[in-house]
Amino acid sequence: MVHDGGARVLQDARLEVWAPPGLGEVRPGDDLAALVGDLLDGAVLDGEALAEGDVVVVTSKVVSKAEGRVVRATDREQAITDETVRVVATRERPGGLPPLRIVENRLGLVMAAAGVDASNTPEGTVLLLPVDPDASARRLRAAWRERFGLDRLGVVVTDTAGRPWREGLTDIAIGAAGVAVVDDLRGGADAHGRPLNVTVTAVADEIAAASELVRGKASGRAIAVVRGVGRFVLGGDGPAGDGPGARTLVRPSADDLFREGSAEAYARGYAAARAEVAHDPAR
Amino acid sequence: MVHDGGARVLQDARLEVWAPPGLGEVRPGDDLAALVGDLLDGAVLDGEALAEGDVVVVTSKVVSKAEGRVVRATDREQAITDETVRVVATRERPGGLPPLRIVENRLGLVMAAAGVDASNTPEGTVLLLPVDPDASARRLRAAWRERFGLDRLGVVVTDTAGRPWREGLTDIAIGAAGVAVVDDLRGGADAHGRPLNVTVTAVADEIAAASELVRGKASGRAIAVVRGVGRFVLGGDGPAGDGPGARTLVRPSADDLFREGSAEAYARGYAAARAEVAHDPAR
Repeated sequence: MVHDGGARVLQDARLEVWAPPGLGEVRPGDDLAALVGDLLDGAVLDGEALAEGDVVVVTSKVVSKAEGRVVRATDREQAITDETVRVVATRERPGGLPPLRIVENRLGLVMAAAGVDASNTPEGTVLLLPVDPDASARRLRAAWRERFGLDRLGVVVTDTAGRPWREGLTDIAIGAAGVAVVDDLRGGADAHGRPLNVTVTAVADEIAAASELVRGKASGRAIAVVRGVGRFVLGGDGPAGDGPGARTLVRPSADDLFREGSAEAYARGYAAARAEVAHDPAR
Repeated sequence: MVHDGGARVLQDARLEVWAPPGLGEVRPGDDLAALVGDLLDGAVLDGEALAEGDVVVVTSKVVSKAEGRVVRATDREQAITDETVRVVATRERPGGLPPLRIVENRLGLVMAAAGVDASNTPEGTVLLLPVDPDASARRLRAAWRERFGLDRLGVVVTDTAGRPWREGLTDIAIGAAGVAVVDDLRGGADAHGRPLNVTVTAVADEIAAASELVRGKASGRAIAVVRGVGRFVLGGDGPAGDGPGARTLVRPSADDLFREGSAEAYARGYAAARAEVAHDPAR
């Protein structure tokens, strides 16, 4: 085992994730950087401190709570509408429930219910996503770099999302600072010397997913520290040190082959043809 | 640190992943269970052995190679067609390249090029996915349970896939044995006692993603051991011990709001309306 300034340096091809307990309920106006900083001060892993190259993962839930994004939910459906930029697909639900709406929200994220969350919040309230999770991540990174005297430190803000074609939800990165959010291997070569043409790995999403395995949903842990991905962690401050942000992981809808639900696109095509005929029956 | 039979037992809320080097080129007919077993025999982590609750992650690439799924690629496009069950979306590509085809393959997976892989294979060949990656995982699990005298052991077979709405690729689980592939929290409660209605976490996909962070694409490491997800790892043999398999993570296309590309669905709707008019102009 190699040691560097008191912190264990992981060998190549090693990853560790741990989720400290003890972050209490976060309330609007709380200084999240200070609360989490206290939690990470001292022993984060077997008595070792936060180290160069570590990534601190924070759920969007606690970021939103600290930023006061809790709103009265007399009408949760209205909150979803307010967060919606574009409806992508809808599905009827049984039992008199309002339809499930999969929408693009203000952050460009395509999510069920626009990412408006009615679990893990006090009764009668819902939680909106942070206004700018990349900015939230940058603020946390700046605070912790100073507090812990670190240069290369990453911050990822996560949320939980479904996806087409696969059952189950996974955590993704909706905010990031100090992290090269993708590992762009284009221009590199495989073990046979052939170009790796299309391999751009969504590293920040994989970090989010790894952290979810540890935090779990029911355990209520909102923080994880990921060690061993230092090659993706940036040093310095300003734009170069903060990196591109998780917003760059959002594919612009114009480039997306699945920008619209299949039924919605079919209906639009059908209506377009009918409108042409109505306009000019000779066609 | 707690010890149990010589193997370190991770505290709650800890995850470790490591990717041993040294698996050479795998060839058709190779005994993959034996090759990887040799690699894991003895020291997998700081001198510690494979332990109860560990998950061994193997890329589909080496499974396919061992199973002889390397075919001559005089016509890669034909190989993609042969693997295709249903075309989901296509996109033209510049430079005289054939169109990108996103299809549902024989495994139910929706993937670009049907999952046919032309990188990391000898020139002039392409690699098909394993015929039944869940069965491959079950065979590996049985061999390693016996060799290492373990009961609760998981195996995940991974592949790399794109997804709608997000840039970049992530690794997903296309085969699994001994792993509860989802963490079904429905019926559970959040920290406020409210029901967690819709939270089914795709644990096996998150394990695959975590392992990718360590294996990397360029490093060429095909194996990872994940420790700390023991609550999802099953004991025993037969169906109960093998668990549901990764096939259960495939959402049936009939249930999928994005079963078809937006442009394809639009075109189908448009054509349907035109056909109605042609059939009965009075409509």
